[in-house]
Amino acid sequence: MSDEAPLIAGIELGGTKCICILARGPDSIEDRVQLPTTRPEETLAGIEAVLDRWSGFVGLGIASFGPVSIDPHAADYGHITSTPKPGWAGQDVAQRLRRHARVPTGFHTDVVGAALAEARWGAAAGLADIAYATVGTGIGVGLIAGGRPVGGLTHSEFGHIRPVRVAGDDWIGNCPYHGACCEGLAAGPAIKARTGIPGPDLPADHRAWDLVADALGQLLHTLVLTGVPRRIVMGGGVMVGTDHLFPRVRAAMTRSLAGYVALAEVADADTFVVPPALGGNAGPLGAIVLGAQAVQAEMGRVFRG
Amino acid sequence: MSDEAPLIAGIELGGTKCICILARGPDSIEDRVQLPTTRPEETLAGIEAVLDRWSGFVGLGIASFGPVSIDPHAADYGHITSTPKPGWAGQDVAQRLRRHARVPTGFHTDVVGAALAEARWGAAAGLADIAYATVGTGIGVGLIAGGRPVGGLTHSEFGHIRPVRVAGDDWIGNCPYHGACCEGLAAGPAIKARTGIPGPDLPADHRAWDLVADALGQLLHTLVLTGVPRRIVMGGGVMVGTDHLFPRVRAAMTRSLAGYVALAEVADADTFVVPPALGGNAGPLGAIVLGAQAVQAEMGRVFRG
Repeated sequence: MSDEAPLIAGIELGGTKCICILARGPDSIEDRVQLPTTRPEETLAGIEAVLDRWSGFVGLGIASFGPVSIDPHAADYGHITSTPKPGWAGQDVAQRLRRHARVPTGFHTDVVGAALAEARWGAAAGLADIAYATVGTGIGVGLIAGGRPVGGLTHSEFGHIRPVRVAGDDWIGNCPYHGACCEGLAAGPAIKARTGIPGPDLPADHRAWDLVADALGQLLHTLVLTGVPRRIVMGGGVMVGTDHLFPRVRAAMTRSLAGYVALAEVADADTFVVPPALGGNAGPLGAIVLGAQAVQAEMGRVFRG
Repeated sequence: MSDEAPLIAGIELGGTKCICILARGPDSIEDRVQLPTTRPEETLAGIEAVLDRWSGFVGLGIASFGPVSIDPHAADYGHITSTPKPGWAGQDVAQRLRRHARVPTGFHTDVVGAALAEARWGAAAGLADIAYATVGTGIGVGLIAGGRPVGGLTHSEFGHIRPVRVAGDDWIGNCPYHGACCEGLAAGPAIKARTGIPGPDLPADHRAWDLVADALGQLLHTLVLTGVPRRIVMGGGVMVGTDHLFPRVRAAMTRSLAGYVALAEVADADTFVVPPALGGNAGPLGAIVLGAQAVQAEMGRVFRG
């Protein structure tokens, strides 16, 4: 995005901290402010104070922890719907901040925000059809088709697919809903629950990594079958910093697909499944994309009459 | 669609027959011509002769058997890519017919066509975000988000997800790629291979139906997790005419989801998972939607300059 791109305000509302940037893109960040995420009134007032200090932005984007309501026709659009975080369940975020900022405002999950940013400027730059999977305390997936998020109604919860178990593995998993779904087998808490050792400390030759990789390989198999991604970016605490996991996950995906998919990109697993490129800036930059898309949509409404 | 809607020519190119309609919608079909699908030259010349007889249509839509190339940026866009059907592998369909008809032309798979038609006029009328799954000689899925097909690159191959096996069932399945993937467990040929009895003749109390329903329930679980569908329409030879299968599939989906998904529509499985409403007209009517969308896209290009 050149300097002629418009200025956008982007907010990544995370569970513990909130990053606000005023930017045109990754090479043109005019200001960056970080706030702790505390109770809603204090946090949202803090964001509003930051927005009040800034001028010249034509759109606002918010990439939020979830679950959130992203159906623009729903009365609770832009709200956090349910969360154990004190005070935030049912909290309106996007409608309040839009009224305050008085500019077109985009709102989505933090995962979809990161997916949009990686597709625009990061590890999948130049590709309009990608998936971003984050494997950390949970597993989240953002699917982007034609540069837009897929799944207009709720947070895509792909992490809860059920993988076929590796023969001989009968650990029950730790998802409270599904037991041994992908998140219940391969997210950070599952690794710790199974082995007693946190992922970052688990030796690379521990057998559990093969089981984690197998579950994640099946997640990628399912993502490929949606027909959307030309590349899959994998981030989150379990993937980033665990270099040996990428080759294992790629091999598990290839094994699971068994040559079925003709898409040429999938055959070269090393370039098809890649780590993120934007690091800690993916979240707020995703908010910038959401803000820019909201401006674009508003322009479309105006000029179509 | 009212009588003021434009006339569109729609072609369903099937593996054995080809249905051409000139229509504005299901209540306004001006002409309907059926041709056998033989060798490409004969079949395409036959379609062109039908188009030559018609006048007044502003767009053309084609819903084709596959696999097909649907990436508009690919050199082989609009071609059948690979098929055992004599003469059709690598055959250009959409580019040739567009040149002949000289109107904006849409092209997609027959499954996506049926999905679009059911979303526009059929069992999911009024819903922009749906899935259509056909369970017959194979399993195909069309995902529609915002009224548009999801998966811009290739045919969505959701039928090849791998379900977790029912305890005690170790039949190897009959998918040549994956063995016991969903298609290898629940499509028509799988039912016959497992039981020795074709689906339509298999008694409703046969144990195999529970295994089929379980695999299909997991297919629906995975579809729900994409975050797209507000309703799932299930058609195809295995579903249609096997009334007892719908309640079983709904129960299997609900069991597999285990209360995880908050989307209200999913909770009422009887209205969330439904049979198709358009019958044999879904294919050609889907082609009408594809043609109308091609006209709309062309208008957008023209008026945006």
